Amino acid sequence: MTASRRRLLVAAGAGAALGAAGKGAQAAGNPDNLPPNQPEWSRTLGPGVIEEAYGTRSRHETAARRYVPWLTQDRQSSVSFTPLAEMNGIITPSGLHFERHHGGVPDIDPSDYRLMIHGMVERPLVFTLEDLKRLPSVSRIHFLECPANGGMEWRGAQMSGVQYTHGMLSCSEWTGVPLKVLLAAAGLRPGASWVLAEGGDASHLARSIPLRKLLDDAFIAFGQNGEAVRPQQGYPARLVLPGYEGNMWIKWIRRIEVGDRPWFTRWETRTYADLMPDGLSRQFTFVNEVNSCITNPCPEKSLRGRPGFVEISGLAWSGAGRIARVDVSVDGGDTWRTAELQEPVLSKAVTRFRIPWEWQEGRQAFLQSRAMDEAGRVQPTLDTLRRVRGVESIYHKNSIHTWLVDRDGTVANVQID
Amino acid sequence: MTASRRRLLVAAGAGAALGAAGKGAQAAGNPDNLPPNQPEWSRTLGPGVIEEAYGTRSRHETAARRYVPWLTQDRQSSVSFTPLAEMNGIITPSGLHFERHHGGVPDIDPSDYRLMIHGMVERPLVFTLEDLKRLPSVSRIHFLECPANGGMEWRGAQMSGVQYTHGMLSCSEWTGVPLKVLLAAAGLRPGASWVLAEGGDASHLARSIPLRKLLDDAFIAFGQNGEAVRPQQGYPARLVLPGYEGNMWIKWIRRIEVGDRPWFTRWETRTYADLMPDGLSRQFTFVNEVNSCITNPCPEKSLRGRPGFVEISGLAWSGAGRIARVDVSVDGGDTWRTAELQEPVLSKAVTRFRIPWEWQEGRQAFLQSRAMDEAGRVQPTLDTLRRVRGVESIYHKNSIHTWLVDRDGTVANVQID
Repeated sequence: MTASRRRLLVAAGAGAALGAAGKGAQAAGNPDNLPPNQPEWSRTLGPGVIEEAYGTRSRHETAARRYVPWLTQDRQSSVSFTPLAEMNGIITPSGLHFERHHGGVPDIDPSDYRLMIHGMVERPLVFTLEDLKRLPSVSRIHFLECPANGGMEWRGAQMSGVQYTHGMLSCSEWTGVPLKVLLAAAGLRPGASWVLAEGGDASHLARSIPLRKLLDDAFIAFGQNGEAVRPQQGYPARLVLPGYEGNMWIKWIRRIEVGDRPWFTRWETRTYADLMPDGLSRQFTFVNEVNSCITNPCPEKSLRGRPGFVEISGLAWSGAGRIARVDVSVDGGDTWRTAELQEPVLSKAVTRFRIPWEWQEGRQAFLQSRAMDEAGRVQPTLDTLRRVRGVESIYHKNSIHTWLVDRDGTVANVQID
Repeated sequence: MTASRRRLLVAAGAGAALGAAGKGAQAAGNPDNLPPNQPEWSRTLGPGVIEEAYGTRSRHETAARRYVPWLTQDRQSSVSFTPLAEMNGIITPSGLHFERHHGGVPDIDPSDYRLMIHGMVERPLVFTLEDLKRLPSVSRIHFLECPANGGMEWRGAQMSGVQYTHGMLSCSEWTGVPLKVLLAAAGLRPGASWVLAEGGDASHLARSIPLRKLLDDAFIAFGQNGEAVRPQQGYPARLVLPGYEGNMWIKWIRRIEVGDRPWFTRWETRTYADLMPDGLSRQFTFVNEVNSCITNPCPEKSLRGRPGFVEISGLAWSGAGRIARVDVSVDGGDTWRTAELQEPVLSKAVTRFRIPWEWQEGRQAFLQSRAMDEAGRVQPTLDTLRRVRGVESIYHKNSIHTWLVDRDGTVANVQID
C-alpha cells in the first residue's frame, strides 16, 4: 500500500476497520486489493426479511444447466448438464441438478398423483401422495448419474469442460418411503423376483429391476434437499435406487408391477443396451461403476494468471458403496499421490477429494484422478475400456480422465491413452 | 373398487397399467384413490430441458419463510422463520433458510468484496473473494441456530406452530477456507487470544470470539448447499462457527481483528446478554445447547382424519457435538421410548429422529422429545430452565417442548410444566 493511498483512505473516514489496519501494519497484497471506500452497502439499509419468502440466489451468480444442441433432435427428449465446476461440496443445488427426460417435464397436480403396486402381489394397492407421506420414511444422500455420462468422450469427442464430460451427475438428500414397506403392505406372491417400474409422463419410460434391489435400499422419494422433489427430477414422486444407473430411477412414477422375469421393454432392448465388439448386446447394467473427475482446475476454471498454490479438487463416486481412495497424478499417470477424502464419506454418494499442488507458469501438466471403492473396484484407462467394450458404446464410461494444463495455464480436455 | 368403476376405467382405455390391475386384483383402498383417467400429463409432451436453466420448484409447492409482525418494529432488523414442518431430511433448502439481520440484506458485488485480517498479527492481509477461493477449503454440514429460537415461549407466548417455536434453525452444507489457514498466513503475535469479527452491512454487527475457536473448526464460507452463499445468509462470504450461536456467524464479513481480550461491543453488553434473576448479566454464551423438536405431527401437520399409524419425526441438534440419543414421550413425560436416529449422525448438524406410533381418534396425547448429546448434556424442562435463568431471558431456550394432540387430532402448542 502506498502512503498516499493509505492516507486517502483514512482521511476519507473509511471507518475504524481500515483505520486500524492503516495504522498498525502494511497491507499484505496488491494495493488494488483494498476495499472500496465506504461501499454503498455498508452505508444503507437493504431489503428486510421475507422480501423473498422463498429465496433466490444473488443476481451476481450465473451458474446454469446447459445442453448440447447437436446431441439430441429436440429438447423434450434430451439432457442438460450440471455445472460441476461451480459446485463446492457434495450437495447439488436442486436448481442445477442435471435433467434427462424423454417426453418433457409433466406438470402433475399432487392431489391427482397416484402410485399403483400390482402384479404378483396379494393385495394390489393404490397410494395417494398423502398416503405415501404418512408411512415410515428415510432420508439418504445419494448421487444420481446418467449412464451416458462421458459417452461423447468414449466416441472420441472432447467436450469443452467438466460440465459436459461429467455433468450428468448430481447428488441430493432424497427422502421417501422404502419399497420394502410398500411391498410388505401389498404382500409378495411366491416366485416374485422382478419388478417393472413405469413413469407417468408421456414417454412412460419403464424398466425391469431385480426385486432384491427394491427390498434392499430402494425408496419412493417425495423429498429432495429438504423440500419437494423438483418437477425436472420427478415431482411429486420418483423411484430412488441408490447406486443404480439414473434411467432406472423412474421419475413421475405411476406403477410398480411385480413379476417373475424381466420385461425386456424397448428401453432395455434398444435404448440402454450396448453393442459389444463381437456383435452381441450387453443388457441390464445396473450399478454405476467407480468414477471420478477433477473439478478444479478444469477447462472452466483455468490457472491463467494464477501460478503458485492450487488445491486440486474433485468428486469421486461408486454405485457399489463408499469411496476408499482417490489418487491424483499431475504427469499423466506416471506418478500418483493419494488425495484427502472429505468427511462424511457416504455410501453411494459423491465424495469430495482435495490435494495441494504447486503450478509453475510455463509448465505443462496432465491432471488425472483415479478412484477406488470399498468393493475394490478401480477406474480403468479409456484404452482398457475400449479394448473390452469396443467403440460403439456410449454408456458406463468410467475411465480415468485427463485435463491438460497448458503452459499459459489454460486447461483443455485431452485423451492421452 | 366397485365393479362398475373398474369396468369404466378399463373400457375408457386407461392403459395397460390400469388394465392389468383391474384384471388381476382388487384395489386396496378407497375407490377415490384411483388415478385420474388418462391424466393430461400422461398424454402430452411437457417443456424440454433448460426450460429452467436454473430450476425452480413446482407451482404446487408453497412452503415459505414467515415473520411475526408484532415481534419487531420493522423488517430490516427482524427475523423470518424456516417452515420446519415442511422439511423432511436434514438439509434446509437455501431458499427457506431462516433470516436474521439488523440492517437489511446488502447487495454486494463479489468483485468489490474484501476481507481484512489485522490487529495482533505479523502481516495484516486483505483478501479478495478470488483469493479466498484459491486457498484450501473444507465442506461441512452444520446447523445454524439463532439463540432467540424459542424465546417467545420462554416468556409465556405459545406460538401457533413449529415454524415459530423452533424455526430460527436451519442446516446447510457450508464450504470455505479454514480460519487457521488465513491466520497462519497473517501470523499471530504472542498473546493473541480473541478476535473481533465484523460484518460489512450497514449494521456492522461485531462479536468477540475466542481465538481457539477460530483455530479449531471455523471457516470463511463462500459456499452453501453446493452454490454461492445466499444474500440473506451473507453473500459473498460469512463466518461459520460450528456449534456456536448464530449471531456470531458474522455475515457479509469484512474484517477479523486479532486481540488479547474481548471487545464488549454493544451487541455483547446489550443485545446478546441475559438478565439473570439476581440482576447480573450473563454474557458470552457461545455453544448452542442440546435441543430438539417434533416436526410431525405438529400444529401445522395435524392428525385430523388420520387415525392409526403415525411416524413421529423431528430434529435434534447440539453445539457440543453429535446427538447420542433422542427419547420421545406421548404422555407428557411420564414414559419415554428411544427413537431411531437417522444416519448420517454428524457433529454440530441436525439429526433426524423417527419413531412409530399409533394414534387413536378421540384420545389426547402430549408429545415431547428429549435429546442427549455425546457430551452428556440433556434437555431440561422449561420449569428447570426458568428456575435457573429466570423469566427475563429470551436466549438459549432449549427446554423440552410439548405438542398436545387433541381428541379430534388437532395439534396445539402447550406448556405443561
